[in-house]
Amino acid sequence: MPRRHRETATAKAVVAEAQQRGRRQRSKETYREISVAEFFAKNRELAGFSNPTRALYQTVRELVENALDATDTHSILPVISIRIAYDDELEAKYGNPRKWFRITVEDNGIGVPPTVIANAFGRVLFSSKYVIRQTRGMYGLGVKAAVLYGQMTAGRPVEVVSSMQESDYVYLRRLYIDVSKNEPKIVEKGQWRKKGRWHGTRVTITLEGDWPRARSRIIEYIKRTAVIAPYAEIYFETPDGEIYVFPRLTSKMPAPPKEAKPHPHGIDLDQMKMLIKRSNARTLLQLLSNELQSVGTIMARKFLEEIGLDPNMNPKKLDNDSLVKLVDSMKSYRFRAPKSDHLSPIGEELIKIGLKRMFKPEWVDALTRPPRAYQGHSFIVEVGIAYGGGIEARNEPLLLRYANKIPLLYEEREDVTYKVVSGINWKIYRVDFPAPLVVLVHIASTKIPYKGVGKESISEVPEIESEIRIAVQHVARKLRVYLGKKAREAEARRKIITISKYIPEIARSLAILSKPPTKWNQPSEKDEKILVDALIRLVSRNVEVPKVPGLEQSDPEKIVRSVIENIKLE
Amino acid sequence: MPRRHRETATAKAVVAEAQQRGRRQRSKETYREISVAEFFAKNRELAGFSNPTRALYQTVRELVENALDATDTHSILPVISIRIAYDDELEAKYGNPRKWFRITVEDNGIGVPPTVIANAFGRVLFSSKYVIRQTRGMYGLGVKAAVLYGQMTAGRPVEVVSSMQESDYVYLRRLYIDVSKNEPKIVEKGQWRKKGRWHGTRVTITLEGDWPRARSRIIEYIKRTAVIAPYAEIYFETPDGEIYVFPRLTSKMPAPPKEAKPHPHGIDLDQMKMLIKRSNARTLLQLLSNELQSVGTIMARKFLEEIGLDPNMNPKKLDNDSLVKLVDSMKSYRFRAPKSDHLSPIGEELIKIGLKRMFKPEWVDALTRPPRAYQGHSFIVEVGIAYGGGIEARNEPLLLRYANKIPLLYEEREDVTYKVVSGINWKIYRVDFPAPLVVLVHIASTKIPYKGVGKESISEVPEIESEIRIAVQHVARKLRVYLGKKAREAEARRKIITISKYIPEIARSLAILSKPPTKWNQPSEKDEKILVDALIRLVSRNVEVPKVPGLEQSDPEKIVRSVIENIKLE
Repeated sequence: MPRRHRETATAKAVVAEAQQRGRRQRSKETYREISVAEFFAKNRELAGFSNPTRALYQTVRELVENALDATDTHSILPVISIRIAYDDELEAKYGNPRKWFRITVEDNGIGVPPTVIANAFGRVLFSSKYVIRQTRGMYGLGVKAAVLYGQMTAGRPVEVVSSMQESDYVYLRRLYIDVSKNEPKIVEKGQWRKKGRWHGTRVTITLEGDWPRARSRIIEYIKRTAVIAPYAEIYFETPDGEIYVFPRLTSKMPAPPKEAKPHPHGIDLDQMKMLIKRSNARTLLQLLSNELQSVGTIMARKFLEEIGLDPNMNPKKLDNDSLVKLVDSMKSYRFRAPKSDHLSPIGEELIKIGLKRMFKPEWVDALTRPPRAYQGHSFIVEVGIAYGGGIEARNEPLLLRYANKIPLLYEEREDVTYKVVSGINWKIYRVDFPAPLVVLVHIASTKIPYKGVGKESISEVPEIESEIRIAVQHVARKLRVYLGKKAREAEARRKIITISKYIPEIARSLAILSKPPTKWNQPSEKDEKILVDALIRLVSRNVEVPKVPGLEQSDPEKIVRSVIENIKLE
Repeated sequence: MPRRHRETATAKAVVAEAQQRGRRQRSKETYREISVAEFFAKNRELAGFSNPTRALYQTVRELVENALDATDTHSILPVISIRIAYDDELEAKYGNPRKWFRITVEDNGIGVPPTVIANAFGRVLFSSKYVIRQTRGMYGLGVKAAVLYGQMTAGRPVEVVSSMQESDYVYLRRLYIDVSKNEPKIVEKGQWRKKGRWHGTRVTITLEGDWPRARSRIIEYIKRTAVIAPYAEIYFETPDGEIYVFPRLTSKMPAPPKEAKPHPHGIDLDQMKMLIKRSNARTLLQLLSNELQSVGTIMARKFLEEIGLDPNMNPKKLDNDSLVKLVDSMKSYRFRAPKSDHLSPIGEELIKIGLKRMFKPEWVDALTRPPRAYQGHSFIVEVGIAYGGGIEARNEPLLLRYANKIPLLYEEREDVTYKVVSGINWKIYRVDFPAPLVVLVHIASTKIPYKGVGKESISEVPEIESEIRIAVQHVARKLRVYLGKKAREAEARRKIITISKYIPEIARSLAILSKPPTKWNQPSEKDEKILVDALIRLVSRNVEVPKVPGLEQSDPEKIVRSVIENIKLE
């Protein structure tokens, strides 16, 4: 079976000796299974919890993203409050001041059913996010990783208070995750009648953190969240007692995403088996046209006939080989592209509102591209560009990356967006660095191809890369038009200034010359003024000043006049 | 409880309407738990299986790494054979030629116990790698992800044939992973008596792949594996029938890593609870000094007294707060650094052997740094540098990255090693790019801080970054010395050449001048030769040619002579 190798006598001795050692050691090889909770506890850096700084940031993220998923995904205008506080009690107990934090995030969302709270916060891979629909959460992992981190460092349970919209009660749970079993261990339970109409969820996690180092990232994260969700009202209180308020700028919200059926290009063998098991379809034809999106009866029949499968056969009777053939052929068959109503892009208007609030730029524009698909997952790319005004000049564009409305702050250089934006020759678009340029890129998808479960950077999927490039170039061309007009206007103004400088002198000379020589030494103020006015009109009419929207607009006469006044002041 | 916001009448209407919509949708929110197998099947790109190209590469990797872990970790000189073949049977069934592959990897390792085979290949997070010891595998995930990918694309089970060293039987298992339950589903079982003394494991996975695109990476991967494991014998057969053989270059193997106890700096609360549960220690003092490494009785007592815990108390009676305090204080207490006998560095000699085989360079050197620790995990950095000879000149160093003896090929620019090596000013070391420079960096650790479960790039841990920098600089300084000597020698040769060029002319003139004028037109060959020899001796003695080891060494007289001969030939 194996090709044996020839060894020299010496090598053989070494091998024998080594194998002896190996044999002595072998008995120590111990196999065991760990729970998925233990896996992510051991390897918490995979979920973004690599150190106290990242952990503080990541916990805020996970809680805020859950809060937004519980509101805007369900057409509720979000009111989110975030509070990070020093935990004085732990400090008194353990020492190490300024190291223990309580993070509380509260939303006005749909609430979590009381029967589900414990699992939703205390069981890794238990989630409502395992459907085909655009949500911020995706893995069913983030908040549990935060709970794990909290209990591993501060030894405190997560506290959840929640009430659903139609419920008359508020429910409380305090719980740990039993790491070896991956299940919640409730330590406190409570419920009481609601007095008002409050609904939503409030989560508190206690953990070891590093506020001074995490501070700027967390503030930036919340700011960028406000940029992309200007319909949200966000309060943020820091451990130092600073309060940031981001008021709601608009009540217009993106349409919430609908749940979708899987697309034939993105389905794999195991998924197909599950579909067949769960479906009521009695024929292959019914299966394809009922359980998949973008597949009509006609197309399904045509496809099945092409690959030689009987449309009327019972899908539960497909043998393994036919199943593989079915799934494999579907991947390359020309079905219609996936639908996009399970996506919820932000829209050009909201992007512009957000960028204006954050930067007060002199120019802003945005583009939402039509939906596209990769490997059966639909996605939409949106791009906003802002220029000038309150933006600081930098040596490269300030890049704001978003994925399903989540701002991404870490690992920028590994992101497909960075690759595209840094690869663009901005000179073509009249941008000369250092320049005050902000580029926002949002990717909305039922499946964001993150590089890791920490959700910080996006893989280089060719379809996505190409859409980003097209969108950035499109908005950048508009920027070029604007900057072109601006340059021409500046040129025209320079021209006016050059000519205008001579007007007083010419006017004075003309005023003198137009009189009889005896009066040459007594110029009349009045004559001179008439001549100046005439010359100003003349110049203003002949020099074209292009109109640029958004820029301070003054009529040419005014410009000429102000130039002359400035000369006189010199 | 929540701070309510004020809304205008219009906004209120919008909110009400949106909340209505939300309420209608809410009932659709469905929670469910998925198994860890389903998680990695859904998100297979996390484990490196993002497309047929990567999947083919990643499958080879996972199998080869398991094969090496089964051999050198147990002091067995590895014999590994890798075979990638087109699966003609599937091609005939499904069409799509050149798309279906069978990958078979066989080792002469310790074998897998027959009772364990099914779980080791069919249950995600079941593994022998969950101990503190340096192994290539770490997550208990890779080979199962390959099995999942195979069954999802080609619909075929994994086939495992294995026999342990002391066993008289060979066992066969063919199995799928039941994705929704995360458990193996055996479809074929067999066992037979061994005829020879074979032991080891042979695994075959059938999958969809893309050989033309994966080819160069896979070959590179195997080559680099051979560089770092010159004690292994590796056979590789491609689907096109090419055969690569990497014979064993040495029988010297690094000492295998031992299993270690956890270090107090790297332990968290849940681990401590598990330790207490499993330990027989009856006092806190016993617990710390028996169950942790680098903690002696004296130090343990001192530490416990400092934090105000009774060394004689029963650890099972510690309350939660005291536990947190214990674990938290341990993190910063000055215990001894972790031991390194659970690490298995390659060693300077093997690195040099490997680099010489791969590149046949004119100069090579290597350094193994002493063990260090980060967050309680010990690690060792090793660096090899090769220069000139068979190395192609490039605009930056050719970087060979290794982690626990695994070559890393993807995501180079995200790796801490790239950051360090590309940040070095090579001019200081007399290297002017383009230059023929190879830099090999190996990080050995009980826990490699990979950025993702696909194990392709390493995070920027400050302690590791600093060690890499020190090691590269150290070997680079030796390179500078070599290149300095080489430059001086070249300079000296140039000098000899310059002087030597005039020797024949001077000799001839002297030969003529030293005779009476009547014979001026009949120079004697003999006189001239005597003079030339004398001059050569003179020049050779006065021009210093530095000795450089490894370079072709010729004595100065020879050099001078050859210069003169060359002149005559012109």
